[in-house]
Amino acid sequence: MKTKLLALAASAAFFATPAAAQLGPGPCGGALACAADAALESDTIAWDFVEGITTEVGPRQAGTEAEKRGRDWAVQWLRANGFRNVADEPFRMETWVPGDNATARVTAPYAQDLMIVPLGNSASTGEAGIEAEVVYFPSYADLAAAPAGSLKGKIAFISHDMRPTQDGSGYGFAGPARWTGAGLAASKGAVATVIRSIGTETERTPHTGGTSFPEGVAPTPAGALSNPDADNLERMFARAGDTPIRMKLVLTPRSLGETTSGNVVGEVVGRDPSLPPVLLACHLDSWWNGTGAFDDGAGCGIAAAAALNVAKAGQPLRTIRVLFAGAEETGLWGSKAYSEAHIDELMAVGIESDFGADRIWRIDTNFAASDPELARELAQAVARFGVAPSREIATGGADLNIVRDQGGALVDLQQDGTRYFDLHHTNNDTLDKIDPAQLRQNVAVWTQVVGILANEPDAFGPAK
Amino acid sequence: MKTKLLALAASAAFFATPAAAQLGPGPCGGALACAADAALESDTIAWDFVEGITTEVGPRQAGTEAEKRGRDWAVQWLRANGFRNVADEPFRMETWVPGDNATARVTAPYAQDLMIVPLGNSASTGEAGIEAEVVYFPSYADLAAAPAGSLKGKIAFISHDMRPTQDGSGYGFAGPARWTGAGLAASKGAVATVIRSIGTETERTPHTGGTSFPEGVAPTPAGALSNPDADNLERMFARAGDTPIRMKLVLTPRSLGETTSGNVVGEVVGRDPSLPPVLLACHLDSWWNGTGAFDDGAGCGIAAAAALNVAKAGQPLRTIRVLFAGAEETGLWGSKAYSEAHIDELMAVGIESDFGADRIWRIDTNFAASDPELARELAQAVARFGVAPSREIATGGADLNIVRDQGGALVDLQQDGTRYFDLHHTNNDTLDKIDPAQLRQNVAVWTQVVGILANEPDAFGPAK
Repeated sequence: MKTKLLALAASAAFFATPAAAQLGPGPCGGALACAADAALESDTIAWDFVEGITTEVGPRQAGTEAEKRGRDWAVQWLRANGFRNVADEPFRMETWVPGDNATARVTAPYAQDLMIVPLGNSASTGEAGIEAEVVYFPSYADLAAAPAGSLKGKIAFISHDMRPTQDGSGYGFAGPARWTGAGLAASKGAVATVIRSIGTETERTPHTGGTSFPEGVAPTPAGALSNPDADNLERMFARAGDTPIRMKLVLTPRSLGETTSGNVVGEVVGRDPSLPPVLLACHLDSWWNGTGAFDDGAGCGIAAAAALNVAKAGQPLRTIRVLFAGAEETGLWGSKAYSEAHIDELMAVGIESDFGADRIWRIDTNFAASDPELARELAQAVARFGVAPSREIATGGADLNIVRDQGGALVDLQQDGTRYFDLHHTNNDTLDKIDPAQLRQNVAVWTQVVGILANEPDAFGPAK
Repeated sequence: MKTKLLALAASAAFFATPAAAQLGPGPCGGALACAADAALESDTIAWDFVEGITTEVGPRQAGTEAEKRGRDWAVQWLRANGFRNVADEPFRMETWVPGDNATARVTAPYAQDLMIVPLGNSASTGEAGIEAEVVYFPSYADLAAAPAGSLKGKIAFISHDMRPTQDGSGYGFAGPARWTGAGLAASKGAVATVIRSIGTETERTPHTGGTSFPEGVAPTPAGALSNPDADNLERMFARAGDTPIRMKLVLTPRSLGETTSGNVVGEVVGRDPSLPPVLLACHLDSWWNGTGAFDDGAGCGIAAAAALNVAKAGQPLRTIRVLFAGAEETGLWGSKAYSEAHIDELMAVGIESDFGADRIWRIDTNFAASDPELARELAQAVARFGVAPSREIATGGADLNIVRDQGGALVDLQQDGTRYFDLHHTNNDTLDKIDPAQLRQNVAVWTQVVGILANEPDAFGPAK
C-alpha cells in the first residue's frame, strides 16, 4: 500500500511541466533538452537501480529462484519510482543450471589445476569427472579442418583468441568458438570441449555463455578456461613436445526441466495511450557467476531512468514502456515469449541497452531512408553528448524480437564496447566496474532520444 | 647424466672472459657492465625460470607435494643451467592447507554468495559451516575499540582498505587487519572473521595470506572477501539499516601436521671459495591459488639470472649462492631453518627479490655509513638503469634471516610495488602479469650489483 501511494505522488510530480513546453525553446533548448543535460550532470536513477539489484539480489540465473527475486525486486522498484501498469508476465522455459563443481586439472605430463566455468547447455561429466588426452586447436578454423572421427575419446581445446573492439565486432569473429565449437568437436567424436574464454582481459576470470549442439549430436561437457589458463595450457603444449597432455575435467551442470521465468514491464503513460508505445528493453537475468551489473543491470537502469527523465520534462505523447526481459542469456526466452504474447500490439519503436555502461558513441536507426528528417533530428539532438550518426542500419537488441517480428522501427544507441568483453559473463561483472559519469552520459542520450520519439505524432519506421 | 654434462659444458663457457677484465674499461665500461647492459636488452634466463615453473609446476603450497615438485623442478633447472653444489636441504614444518570449500553466503536480509578465500592458519567451520550475524568494522581501529565480549557469537567483518604505494608502505597500514584481525576479533568473542582483502585492485580476486592468533586464543575460521564483495557487503549494511545481516560461512582448512619442506641452493663457485659468499635469496613456495609468478617465481628467476650473467663476465672472486627458500608464505620456515643450519658459515652480503617483477627504482644498503665508498660505487653503477640511491637502511628480505642473525651486510634493490598488491596472494598471480622488459631491468640491476659485490676483496657490512 505504501508503494502505491508513493507511485501516485511521484506520477503527479512527473508531469508538473506542461507537455507543450518540453520540445520548445527556453534554457538549454526546451524542457526535454534540459532534462537530458541534467541527467548528464546528476542522474542518480540508473545508478540507484543497478546498485540496488546488484546489492540486494546479486546474480540472477535464468529460470531460478534468484531470477524470481530479481523480478520481485524490479517490480517493487518500478512501482516505488512511479511507473504504472507494472507487471511480471510469466512464461515457461527449459532451465539449465551450472551445478556446484567445475575443475580442470592437467594430469600429465605436468600437474596443475586450471580455472574453468561450464558453458550454458554443457552436459555433465558426473561428479567423478572424465580424464582424456587433450587435442589443441589454435583456432576455430583448425577444429573445422580436423577429419571426421579424429577426436574420438579426446578433449578438444579451442584456443581461438579475441581482441577488444569499440563496436564489439571482435565477438563476431571469436564467438563461434563458444557458440558452436563444442558441438563441432562433439560431431568429430570429442568427449568434451574446453575453449579459451571469449573475453579480452588477462585476468583469472573464465567467461561463460551459451553453447549449442547440432541436431543429432549429443551434448558433451563444455567449459571455458580463463585467458591466463589457456595461455598456460598452450605453453604446456609447447614444452611437452610429443608427450600427450591429459586433463581431468569435472563439470556438473544439470537441467531443472521446465520452470517459470517472467518479463517485467512498467509504463510512463502517454497523453494518447491509443498510439503505439515506445519500447525500452534490457534484460534482468544474468549468469550465475557475476552480479549482472554491466550485463545487464545497467541497461535496465538506463532505460528506466530515461523514461522517468522524459516524464519529468512533461507527460509524453506516447506511452513509454520498459521491458526488463527474463532469461535472455540462456536463449532469449523472454524476448520470444514477449513477442508471442504481444505480437498484435503494435510498437512505435524499440531501443535496447545491453552492452555495458560505457559511453554511447554512435546512433543508428533503421529508418534513415524512410524518415530522414526524424533520423537527422535524433542525431543532431545527441551530437552534444559526443554521439556520431552513422549509415549503419539498426538491428535492435536481443530482447526486441517483438519489434523485429512486427518489422518496426529500431534505434541502436551504440555503447563503447572496448572493455565490455573484459567482464562479459564473468564473476567480475560487478558494480565497481561501472563509471558513474559514463552511465550518466548513457542516461542523457537515452533521455533525449526517447523524449523525441515519445513525442513524435506520426508513425515512422523502415520501408516495408 | 645428461644434466651433469650440460652443467660442465656450461660452466666452462661461463668463465671464457678472464676475471681481471670484468671490472676494467672496454666497451660499455668492462665485462660486467657489458653483461648488465646485455641483460637489459636480451636476458632470457629469468623469464625461462618463471615461465617454466609456473607452466610445469604451477601453485606450490608450502609443505605439500606441489612444493616438492617445485623443488625437484628447480634442482633440475639449476643443474641444467650450470650451477654447482645444487642441493635440496630438507627441514620439517607444520603444514596448513586450505581445504576444498570456501563459501560466504549472506542469508538475510538479502541472499547472495560473496567470494572468499581462507586465510593461512584459519580454523575450519566444518563442512556444515556456521551461520551468524555479521558485525561491521570499517577499520582495524574500530575493531580494536570494540568492548571485550561484544562479539560473542558474531562474525566480525573488518573492511579496512588498502591503497597502492610505490614502496609498499600501504601494506604496513592495512596489513594488521589480516595479520592479527581475526585473533583480535576472536579475543572479543567472535566465532569467525571475514576481512576485506589486503589488496589494491577491484577484481573478484580475494587475497589470502597468513593470520595468527594470540597465545590463549583458540583459532577461529578466518577468510578474506574480494574488494568488490567487501564493497557489496558494505552497501548491504548501508541499505539494511537496523536489520541484522547474517552470513553462512564455510571454510574447510586443515592441518597436515608436520611435513617436510626444503631450501634449494646452488652456486657459481668463486675464485676464492674460502671467502664468505654472496647470498641471493627468493622463495620457491606460493599460496595454493595462484601460480607464484610475481610472488615469487620472478624473484628466483632474477637471482639465478644475475648469478649466471656475472659468471659470463668472468669467474667472480667470491662464490655466489642462490637460496630458493621453502615455505616462506606460511611463516618463514625455510628462512629460519637455513639460518639455524648455516649460522656458522659467514655470508658476505644478502640480497633478496620478493616484490614482483616491476622495475627497480631505488637501492638501499645497511653499510653506507661504514663503507661509503662501496655503497657509492653500487649506486653509481646502477644509476644508468634508472635506480636512485637513498638514505634508507636496508633490512633485507624475508628469507635472509641468516644474514640478519649474523649482523651482516644487506642490499635492498627496491622494486616498484604500485601494482604488486593487485596480484599478491590471489589466483591472478600468473605469468601474463610479468612485463618482460621490466623483468630484464631487474636482471640488469642485479647483475651489476651482484658482480661488484662478488668481486669485492675486503669484508664489508654495517658497523657492529
